[in-house]
Amino acid sequence: MSSVASPAVSPKPHAFARVFALLTPHLAELDRYLHGQLGSFEPEIRTMVDYCIDTSGKRIRPALTFLSGWRGQGQVQADLVRVAAVVELVHLATLVHDDIMDDADVRRSRRTAAREYGPTAAVLLGDALFAHALHLATQFPTTEVCAAVSESTRRVCAGEIVQTLRRRSTNITRADYQRIVDLKTAELFRVSCHLGARLAGFPAAFVDAASHFGRHLGIAYQIYDDLVDFFGEEKRIGKTLGTDLASGKLTLPLLVLLERLPAAEAAALTSEVSGERPPQLALRLQQMNELGVFEAVAQAVNEEVDTATSALRAWSAEAPTPLLLGLGDVLREQVQSLQARR
Amino acid sequence: MSSVASPAVSPKPHAFARVFALLTPHLAELDRYLHGQLGSFEPEIRTMVDYCIDTSGKRIRPALTFLSGWRGQGQVQADLVRVAAVVELVHLATLVHDDIMDDADVRRSRRTAAREYGPTAAVLLGDALFAHALHLATQFPTTEVCAAVSESTRRVCAGEIVQTLRRRSTNITRADYQRIVDLKTAELFRVSCHLGARLAGFPAAFVDAASHFGRHLGIAYQIYDDLVDFFGEEKRIGKTLGTDLASGKLTLPLLVLLERLPAAEAAALTSEVSGERPPQLALRLQQMNELGVFEAVAQAVNEEVDTATSALRAWSAEAPTPLLLGLGDVLREQVQSLQARR
Repeated sequence: MSSVASPAVSPKPHAFARVFALLTPHLAELDRYLHGQLGSFEPEIRTMVDYCIDTSGKRIRPALTFLSGWRGQGQVQADLVRVAAVVELVHLATLVHDDIMDDADVRRSRRTAAREYGPTAAVLLGDALFAHALHLATQFPTTEVCAAVSESTRRVCAGEIVQTLRRRSTNITRADYQRIVDLKTAELFRVSCHLGARLAGFPAAFVDAASHFGRHLGIAYQIYDDLVDFFGEEKRIGKTLGTDLASGKLTLPLLVLLERLPAAEAAALTSEVSGERPPQLALRLQQMNELGVFEAVAQAVNEEVDTATSALRAWSAEAPTPLLLGLGDVLREQVQSLQARR
Repeated sequence: MSSVASPAVSPKPHAFARVFALLTPHLAELDRYLHGQLGSFEPEIRTMVDYCIDTSGKRIRPALTFLSGWRGQGQVQADLVRVAAVVELVHLATLVHDDIMDDADVRRSRRTAAREYGPTAAVLLGDALFAHALHLATQFPTTEVCAAVSESTRRVCAGEIVQTLRRRSTNITRADYQRIVDLKTAELFRVSCHLGARLAGFPAAFVDAASHFGRHLGIAYQIYDDLVDFFGEEKRIGKTLGTDLASGKLTLPLLVLLERLPAAEAAALTSEVSGERPPQLALRLQQMNELGVFEAVAQAVNEEVDTATSALRAWSAEAPTPLLLGLGDVLREQVQSLQARR
């Protein structure tokens, strides 16, 4: 557990490069498609929409859609591009609104839309992105895509609301945390896989398996993200560390630390979460290191990846399966890489 | 132009009572339907959703839907109830978000959701209402309703964004004002009429005529609402007067006043709109009275009602027509009533 970066771990993990290289034409097509939507927005907000599209980052949800609907290399399916754009726009809308909640300055090393255009414009920009996403969802022959996406959107919002209402609350349990993660993150991962597999015409049982995979990969991803908030590198992740402690969000690393600290120290941490005392990030990180919190949370990530992986066990012959499993490997590698850099 | 209420004008104008009495079973059914939706929201936000449904007020957009789809008295059509709920939920979502923008304390004599639950929860509550509205829209056999509603929602958001971005801007023209009103208010009035007539199976040309009626009634309604912000009674409208001047929104009463004031006074008013000087509401009201601003704006309302009315000229034999024209009369009466109370 050296704090010096290990040369054995490449900066771009192997599985990541392998999976995302396959998707280069798909993600390029998605970018073209998203930029092609700008003309559908009123002139006054095109710059803002363009700003959001460009800051969006990793395109994990579209990747899930493309991989779940994988039928082999070749032409990029227009249906999959459109539905990938729908889930990405919903995701971008939630990011724009989240950054208002979090009063965040920076995301992925750029100013947030809330900071760039003001929180009031950001509320409406998020709304316009939502509305356009759902409008694109109506361009499929049936109401199925729109129904799935609007239902997921409502669940994502519910997750964000629960998290917001319970901010600075100190009686959050692991079950509460899991439910928030399931709603706010796993739901959109799940529907991305569901719609990709469904539109590509896979059998219903495989669509369900891919959805199950997506849901658990989403849970794993959120736990990993919560770990990064404490153990990442600011330069690499493009935002300041310790924001969850500072804003009073009881994520898994803090829940585990609370369980392992002696009563007096746990009480002190509780009062930092509730906002009665200023957060002691350095002290809490030191305690996390002493009490094996990193390892416990990393294990939780890996267990969720295992659950995701096992959902596809019966489907090894289908084209998407090895690629989706590769995404699970990406997450495992990222956890290892985080570990190695400590 | 007495400031004493004229006894000749009844407190509930005649046309209003006539039209809304017809709709009693429809609006009761709508309320039942909306409350029946609470179970579809996550437990944590049901109280908030319930609060919004109860504060919603006049149900003008549902009334437009029911009247545009009118086939005579009798059973309330389930399709119309559902689509009325969709447009009302979209409207409520925009109100929740607007009250954050406006930093409003009170709407219809109750605390706004933003004040009751905090602005951050209100952002997400609005999102959940939007998402649920669009989810209900997917329960029709085709994507048509969802497509129309999501497109309208995007245009409403665009209108709000333009208004927000141009707040405290002093170079707003009448054309700018008209475009904002067309997007932020008339669009949802239009789609309410469109979908009512469409779902009731009226011919396409009548659907277009009803849409045209709805759009211009919406413009008239917004101009009337902007007039009320200066000339209404706080107790009656349930909010403080002069909020548009205080928040730097150049609405039609202010645009007309600017046109009619001598240059030096116009410059002073401009600096109140821009926020450089505190708003002089009493002085501006006195000048509006002296310069006939009320009459000019009232005329603009009536002209839009005329345009709305003329859209239905060829359709006097259809059941909805006299009722929709009755809604135009309601607005005319409200302007007269405002005039009489000055």
